[in-house]
Amino acid sequence: MTVLVFVDPEFPAGRPADPSQPQLSVLDQGVTRGDGVFETLLYTGGAVRKLDAHLARLESSAAMCELPVPSAQAWRSAVGTAVAAYDAARSAAGATEAPGMRHEATVKLVATRGPEGATHGTAWVTVSPAPELGQRQRETGLSVITLDRGYDSEAGDRAPWLLMGAKTLSYGVNMAALRHARKQGADDVIFVSSDGHVLEGATSTVLLAHREGPLKRLVTPTLQTGILPGTTQGAIFAAAQSAGWELGYGPLETQDLFEADAVWLVSSVRLLAPINSIDGVGIPRDRELHAELARMVDGIR
Amino acid sequence: MTVLVFVDPEFPAGRPADPSQPQLSVLDQGVTRGDGVFETLLYTGGAVRKLDAHLARLESSAAMCELPVPSAQAWRSAVGTAVAAYDAARSAAGATEAPGMRHEATVKLVATRGPEGATHGTAWVTVSPAPELGQRQRETGLSVITLDRGYDSEAGDRAPWLLMGAKTLSYGVNMAALRHARKQGADDVIFVSSDGHVLEGATSTVLLAHREGPLKRLVTPTLQTGILPGTTQGAIFAAAQSAGWELGYGPLETQDLFEADAVWLVSSVRLLAPINSIDGVGIPRDRELHAELARMVDGIR
Repeated sequence: MTVLVFVDPEFPAGRPADPSQPQLSVLDQGVTRGDGVFETLLYTGGAVRKLDAHLARLESSAAMCELPVPSAQAWRSAVGTAVAAYDAARSAAGATEAPGMRHEATVKLVATRGPEGATHGTAWVTVSPAPELGQRQRETGLSVITLDRGYDSEAGDRAPWLLMGAKTLSYGVNMAALRHARKQGADDVIFVSSDGHVLEGATSTVLLAHREGPLKRLVTPTLQTGILPGTTQGAIFAAAQSAGWELGYGPLETQDLFEADAVWLVSSVRLLAPINSIDGVGIPRDRELHAELARMVDGIR
Repeated sequence: MTVLVFVDPEFPAGRPADPSQPQLSVLDQGVTRGDGVFETLLYTGGAVRKLDAHLARLESSAAMCELPVPSAQAWRSAVGTAVAAYDAARSAAGATEAPGMRHEATVKLVATRGPEGATHGTAWVTVSPAPELGQRQRETGLSVITLDRGYDSEAGDRAPWLLMGAKTLSYGVNMAALRHARKQGADDVIFVSSDGHVLEGATSTVLLAHREGPLKRLVTPTLQTGILPGTTQGAIFAAAQSAGWELGYGPLETQDLFEADAVWLVSSVRLLAPINSIDGVGIPRDRELHAELARMVDGIR
């Protein structure tokens, strides 16, 4: 079940539409050129998580692409309409919450440049059930492989047209990397720059932790490598800082992953997925650190 | 005026549809992930140019993406239906050929992975008038700037998941590079690898020529740098070889561009566009070489 609401200036609360019917022009540059931006959010327990942070990142991605996008207020209205319609559809279908199991849904915001020559872009919100695989992987953990991202860690700085750090619809490489990982029997990837810096997952941020006596330290790759700023990483860092953890921002090399006490891929819908192995080599999984971070993730609003 | 025909197993001649109406699902991975491939062809004088070469390249791009696409025969049927409908629509609109001016149209083939979880992808053909700007640029020539592509010239070989050499819908970087060029007052770009090799244009192949006495030599960057194999470059090379030209395949550095007797960006719809300047520095335009190549391009079928 998917709910679709277009962001449309003529419909202040958004314009609901039937996602099972064609709703997009084949001339839209979102499809012909991968020319647009998106965000993926978690909707659970009656709340859309980190909506502010996602809207801010969408705005930033759009600025890098010089893409006019709807206002935060217009997005908010459409998201509100979409999740209300999703809840209503689930109720009508007789869905109930199993005890201790909260239903999780994925909210996707997409904004494209619209059809060639159009005066404005196309923007919409969808809400659909979150993939069960991701929910399982929080428990089972992930086997990942490292893959060369082709770019060196300074490319983003010197070449803004590469749109590194923008979350664009041109996700072909991310999808190809995931297919490559699955063919190798792995669940996910960690991209590494051509000069050996740890970057990010295909759709997630890398997080690692160290414990030194009473001290707990959380580290993520520096944004200077051109990676996407992770909204979940940002929220976890804020919570960890309040809880007295030390925070660090790489440069990180692959070896640093193997020397950590725990490594995760974090993202908005799958949340905190512990890594079991990298390139076939086992990674420690400090269960206490994981439990503590998992509680922080539960608290993210 | 645009004509749209879907490639659809239930319609052997293709399924015509109205391109002014929404025809695509917002859940199609062509738009949500830029996950698909495309080709752009020239239709003029009653013939679609180089259809075989484009179908072969589409097949090759799709193989790199592990994307099932329609058979060449299915594409051919849909293209035939589309150009016939385009001609009929032009006639109905009273369009006439100005003397000495042949109408030019762009034929676009697109194949996506379809909506998430779908059993098959989405594929369609559009026909629309070719952009006038491109036709003018054949005469006026181009000012281009060189831009770092971020990848070194060996990345394609060692990292197939980067999909270099595949013409995918994830064209965001190409579009951003063109916007960057236009802001600098330039018309187009020549991408250069991070280790200094000349690669390709944003939507075209680089070609350069040397004249040494009676000898004429045509050179293009080697495919080993991970660039797209140019169908127009291929056709020009075949014609030039028959006409007694020598052929060469780079590695090329930026300096080689400045030392040539003429440099062009070649592509299927704009065809042979001479370069006037690179990074603000004038480039020789050997008019005799240009006239000879332009005749070869006219002969491409």
